[in-house]
Amino acid sequence: MDLVSPGRGDLPHRLGEAVVTMRDPSGRPIPDAAVLVQQTAHAFSFGNIGFDFIDHANGSGSPGDAELAELWLDLFNTATLPFYWGGFEPDPGRPDTRRLATTAHWFADRGVALKGHPLVWHTVQPPWLLNHDTDAIERLQRERIRREVGDFAGLIDTWDAINEVVIMPVFDKEDNGITRLARERGRIAMVRLAFEEALATNPTATLLINDFDLSSAYECLLEGLLEAGIPLSAIGLQTHMHQGYWGEDAMLAMVDRFARYGLPLHLTETSLVSGELMPSHIVDLNDYQVTSWPSTPEGEARQADELVRHYGSLVAHPSVEAITYWGITDRGAWLGAPIGLVRADGSRKPAYDALHSLVKGDWWVAPTSVRTDAAGRFRLRGFAGDYSVSVPGEADRSSALRLAVGASTADLML
Amino acid sequence: MDLVSPGRGDLPHRLGEAVVTMRDPSGRPIPDAAVLVQQTAHAFSFGNIGFDFIDHANGSGSPGDAELAELWLDLFNTATLPFYWGGFEPDPGRPDTRRLATTAHWFADRGVALKGHPLVWHTVQPPWLLNHDTDAIERLQRERIRREVGDFAGLIDTWDAINEVVIMPVFDKEDNGITRLARERGRIAMVRLAFEEALATNPTATLLINDFDLSSAYECLLEGLLEAGIPLSAIGLQTHMHQGYWGEDAMLAMVDRFARYGLPLHLTETSLVSGELMPSHIVDLNDYQVTSWPSTPEGEARQADELVRHYGSLVAHPSVEAITYWGITDRGAWLGAPIGLVRADGSRKPAYDALHSLVKGDWWVAPTSVRTDAAGRFRLRGFAGDYSVSVPGEADRSSALRLAVGASTADLML
Repeated sequence: MDLVSPGRGDLPHRLGEAVVTMRDPSGRPIPDAAVLVQQTAHAFSFGNIGFDFIDHANGSGSPGDAELAELWLDLFNTATLPFYWGGFEPDPGRPDTRRLATTAHWFADRGVALKGHPLVWHTVQPPWLLNHDTDAIERLQRERIRREVGDFAGLIDTWDAINEVVIMPVFDKEDNGITRLARERGRIAMVRLAFEEALATNPTATLLINDFDLSSAYECLLEGLLEAGIPLSAIGLQTHMHQGYWGEDAMLAMVDRFARYGLPLHLTETSLVSGELMPSHIVDLNDYQVTSWPSTPEGEARQADELVRHYGSLVAHPSVEAITYWGITDRGAWLGAPIGLVRADGSRKPAYDALHSLVKGDWWVAPTSVRTDAAGRFRLRGFAGDYSVSVPGEADRSSALRLAVGASTADLML
Repeated sequence: MDLVSPGRGDLPHRLGEAVVTMRDPSGRPIPDAAVLVQQTAHAFSFGNIGFDFIDHANGSGSPGDAELAELWLDLFNTATLPFYWGGFEPDPGRPDTRRLATTAHWFADRGVALKGHPLVWHTVQPPWLLNHDTDAIERLQRERIRREVGDFAGLIDTWDAINEVVIMPVFDKEDNGITRLARERGRIAMVRLAFEEALATNPTATLLINDFDLSSAYECLLEGLLEAGIPLSAIGLQTHMHQGYWGEDAMLAMVDRFARYGLPLHLTETSLVSGELMPSHIVDLNDYQVTSWPSTPEGEARQADELVRHYGSLVAHPSVEAITYWGITDRGAWLGAPIGLVRADGSRKPAYDALHSLVKGDWWVAPTSVRTDAAGRFRLRGFAGDYSVSVPGEADRSSALRLAVGASTADLML
């Protein structure tokens, strides 16, 4: 039986192997026929933020947006969209729903899954929230969750339900309603609030807790949440590495600490700079303000190397089911840092090509010709995801197949 | 009405004020009589470790022990005794119960309350525990809790039920059974285990959780424990300050973070050095090994000053109900550090006298003569605690009074 196989197949927990039988419309196997097999999508979530395409999707983009979008869409399959309350609803009662929905549709039309970020957070808060007492803040926060989750249900069904809870009640950089609420109610009550409202509105939503604090504090918080029966869908782990790549060993040791809770892990916010590193004494990355932070040739080579090691080691960990990179381009990047995979001028950095050669290379089944055997069968081995099988030269004769991890069989009509 | 008052009365939440009526054996008020009022004990727990008197209490002490004990007993009212499993039961089935019970009795006979430290911890573990699988380790740990709590019930009714849970499952300095257990079962399960067994054996025991990690991690852990309904009697906060006094502001900010859980706070392990400070880059204090760490005149002056500020600010905080200092003498002190209040040669450091002038001075009602009024009354204002009222010159005519915080009345028979 002919075998179709990806570029590199040494990640067994990511791979499916199906015996596929091709059949004609009457159900008879099609023996000894040439078919073209190709992967069309990854089940693994290779995500990135979609912030850069809001204007573009709403018809008010900048030159270069279309080309940037092409690069984005060729590499990523999941977009994180910004729902920071302060930015989303600067004037009470006037949320930015329409613009975000247009953006979400733009991505969805291109086969991209969506995630909203975040429903509850103490930063980027609307200042008008401070005019209310704690009970009112709680009510407004609950209403806002229901509104966003309801308005986007079916389009965005994955949410960072709550962000950075470890620091939430003790955050002292600026007064805000959510810290007040968290200090009064406690962390577990805050997470329960977020999950309660989101699930009441969209009972099958995928809901994450997300944090940059990956110390024992987050472990302790998670253990409390599990004790409290909060139905976490996955654990979100931020890894902004402006101060340098942590290395595979440190990263996997961290991942192992969180993997022991038996939940899927999402590396929700990943960044590696292609320029000078931020000094290690900076504790809150936001404190580092520079007028210029250029991408350099040496930095770009390092970034590409580290990105390959980072993705390689994480995709190899069975608990990881999503990696979201934090930006496609240096243009307007967070902190002005050269964390993009594309330079501000729109050209690809080595990191883009390096990641592409994994996601669409080593881990991908490129179009492959194969012949069915006497019983109409061939074997498909590849990363879990979507595949198409077609008759060469007859574009209308094609069929789709979803390959799951492990062994399976499939019958496809041509 | 005559007033008896302590040296300094500016800590209202520590003070009681009672109108005391003196009566004769037939119940009639004793008007216009001279009585002597004096405090005999503090309700506030001024603790210290009692480790240094185990040999002394068991008849195998060193020269100077009796004098050291006198100093100890004149300043402290609560002794922490060591129940480190590895030291307490080096050979399985042969616990050091008798020696510790003798020590506990020695203290109790001298009016000192006792605390056992700790029932569960991952450090100072018996190596033989590693011969068992996780289920057996759990069983042995449970049995050991029941044994100690049961054997000492009535003598030791306050325990550090579990120590340093934040780091417990990720502790990697040495392999030990408790870390294995904690990693498998989780932190909350470990605390539940400790409390379950201790309360099953001594249902009215005062049980603490105790930690040196006072970061958000401990907050998160505590929130999970409260969510889980673990009946914490008090929160234990370690403050070993070998690297320098944190200052009142930082200390009280920390105390406030934990006070918001509404539980009493015990400053369980307090130390301030009277010599050079440990370099600030040391993370685990145990890593600092020096051959000699002398107490110096400047260090002793600083220690005395800091001790007064430290106790003063903590006693002024309404949530704090105990402060335990970690050692009376530099002789054999932890890490060889000059944290004692008494030098290795047995002489008092300024810190001893400074603390004494608070505990037995500013915060104490020294013997005071007062006259009852026409209705046999006088007013007593002082720190909550025990008091005696006697007829001057007639030692057998005396009566005891327990003064609680707030206003009260009392009738005393003479």
